Amino acid sequence: MAEGPTITPVILSGGAGTRLWPMSRESFPKQFLPLASEQSMLQQTALRVATSDGFAPPIVVCNVDHRFMVAEQLRTIDIDPRAIVLEPVGRNTAPAAAIAALMLAEKDPGALLLLPSDHIVADKAGFLAAIDTAKSAATAGEMITFGVKPERAETGYGYIHRGSELNSQQGVFRVSEFVEKPNSATAEKYLSGGLHDWNSGMFLFAAETYLNEIERLEPKIIASCREAIEKAVGDLDFLRLDPESFSASPAKSIDYAVMEHTDKAAVVPVEIGWNDVGSWTALWDIGDGDDDGNVVHGDVLSLDCAGSYIRTDGPLVAALGIQDLVLVAMDDCVLVTPRDRAQDVKAVVDE
Amino acid sequence: MAEGPTITPVILSGGAGTRLWPMSRESFPKQFLPLASEQSMLQQTALRVATSDGFAPPIVVCNVDHRFMVAEQLRTIDIDPRAIVLEPVGRNTAPAAAIAALMLAEKDPGALLLLPSDHIVADKAGFLAAIDTAKSAATAGEMITFGVKPERAETGYGYIHRGSELNSQQGVFRVSEFVEKPNSATAEKYLSGGLHDWNSGMFLFAAETYLNEIERLEPKIIASCREAIEKAVGDLDFLRLDPESFSASPAKSIDYAVMEHTDKAAVVPVEIGWNDVGSWTALWDIGDGDDDGNVVHGDVLSLDCAGSYIRTDGPLVAALGIQDLVLVAMDDCVLVTPRDRAQDVKAVVDE
Repeated sequence: MAEGPTITPVILSGGAGTRLWPMSRESFPKQFLPLASEQSMLQQTALRVATSDGFAPPIVVCNVDHRFMVAEQLRTIDIDPRAIVLEPVGRNTAPAAAIAALMLAEKDPGALLLLPSDHIVADKAGFLAAIDTAKSAATAGEMITFGVKPERAETGYGYIHRGSELNSQQGVFRVSEFVEKPNSATAEKYLSGGLHDWNSGMFLFAAETYLNEIERLEPKIIASCREAIEKAVGDLDFLRLDPESFSASPAKSIDYAVMEHTDKAAVVPVEIGWNDVGSWTALWDIGDGDDDGNVVHGDVLSLDCAGSYIRTDGPLVAALGIQDLVLVAMDDCVLVTPRDRAQDVKAVVDE
Repeated sequence: MAEGPTITPVILSGGAGTRLWPMSRESFPKQFLPLASEQSMLQQTALRVATSDGFAPPIVVCNVDHRFMVAEQLRTIDIDPRAIVLEPVGRNTAPAAAIAALMLAEKDPGALLLLPSDHIVADKAGFLAAIDTAKSAATAGEMITFGVKPERAETGYGYIHRGSELNSQQGVFRVSEFVEKPNSATAEKYLSGGLHDWNSGMFLFAAETYLNEIERLEPKIIASCREAIEKAVGDLDFLRLDPESFSASPAKSIDYAVMEHTDKAAVVPVEIGWNDVGSWTALWDIGDGDDDGNVVHGDVLSLDCAGSYIRTDGPLVAALGIQDLVLVAMDDCVLVTPRDRAQDVKAVVDE
């Protein structure tokens, strides 16, 4: 990585991953699960930025209930975080990022925050190169998102409409518009048009840029976060935000609170093997399939099966002649659904 | 039931039911499972003949390992068997029937044996009427099988080619030929021809008729069985056949050892809601389906499913959008297969 200011990774570990039920649960969300490799998504994310020059130790923001899981998972991979910040309740990403920005700005308002998102990134070198591209723009006050080149007409993601390239910043483009999840005809248009990228949920910006913008756009968020830090209780391992103050913050995403309204939004288009592992189908996509396109994990006996994701962390699973199914078995529950319905697992969990 | 000699039901409880894995196992075969109702197939079979006039208490022949299960299941339904005969090893149905025939012939060579088979019979009155039809022919020395009118071009059953009606016995027909499991074109011909019935595995004959025929056709079987009874050890509850003698018997079915070779074979055609519950598809067939054709049993959450058999005796099962599948879950294993592949579950068990 080229010279420049040190970047602090801010890992927001607050998701629920309900579409990965039954493995992912409220008490054990997907980011803590070794879904795609021997390491959890949290561990993979931390390692992605920890083992390169130019990165400071990460700040992790998580729910208070998950503190030991986070601490243990980082300990296992020999990462000593700058802080593990504990949220008493989830308030989406904008307040969590504000907390990290406030912590960093105290010593260095120009400090850069990288929100790497706890997703799969197959091409780590490409990822680091993209951050390198983004770095000087972020230092200059831009708020950088990373736009993933679409591989299909996905209707489950938000899109970023790419505008013109910044004058002095090769590879960094003005954001013309953030678009919500499109319908399938619109998604097809985006795919063929070539001007829309998937919103990956990864960001790079300076602490003071983010704080200025959120102060202007969401004063209630920043006020709550300031108070939550002032009244926070710290010990050797954790920083516990003040429950009352933090709970008073509006719950908004970084996109919704800031990015969609600021004129500083810029995008670095990337092709880095990004996958949000949002559903079992995504795990089938990235898994090592056999000759018949089955991705199998655990004690599975399969015969004449094709195109299926079969996983067990409990009972023996015998699959005979199934096609394009997802089957996930645990000791206390079993999920079965066609691969193209795996997006709807949330509906089952809600029941 | 009309007047006549008393009939002793002989329930051969020796099957394995591997196609009903994972519920049916070596240690707990299908006849002991409450698959289609609150009662097991053994209990349903025993009750079918126990609560009507004209039937003596049953003789049950089972594997020695299943003795307590048989005894307990009969006790629960208040049936006091004439004997529970314990086989040291399975030798198919011909020797088991010979044992029962020898036991009955000792006091009354003309005693009638009914082998009711541990299958589903929805129409009990029709079943009893068919036995009534068969009774005098059996007393006159015929060996009666019951031929089930085919409902489909089934390739999994043997068929009975019906000959001419016996002169003095209305509703009883000479067997023209027993045919092995046909291919699908032949099965179609049988179905449209109207002269072929499914071989239900139910029999009615006099003890001496069977003994004479098996003595003539399979002298080794009868010799082994005689010795196995002579050297048997009896206690209050069980008759334990002599292991060495019984093991020496050839393993053959009643059909193969006797019926296919004797000129005394006759058939009574029946339509009595017979189902051999040979596979999960059969249980789907006879189960109470919902509006979308799903038969569901246990702690199952189903959404947008159709034509499926979903059963759990262990973990919660969540099924989303599946079609025409069989899913059977237990604490230690899970089976999933399309409904039309359920016949092949044996292949999985063999693995």
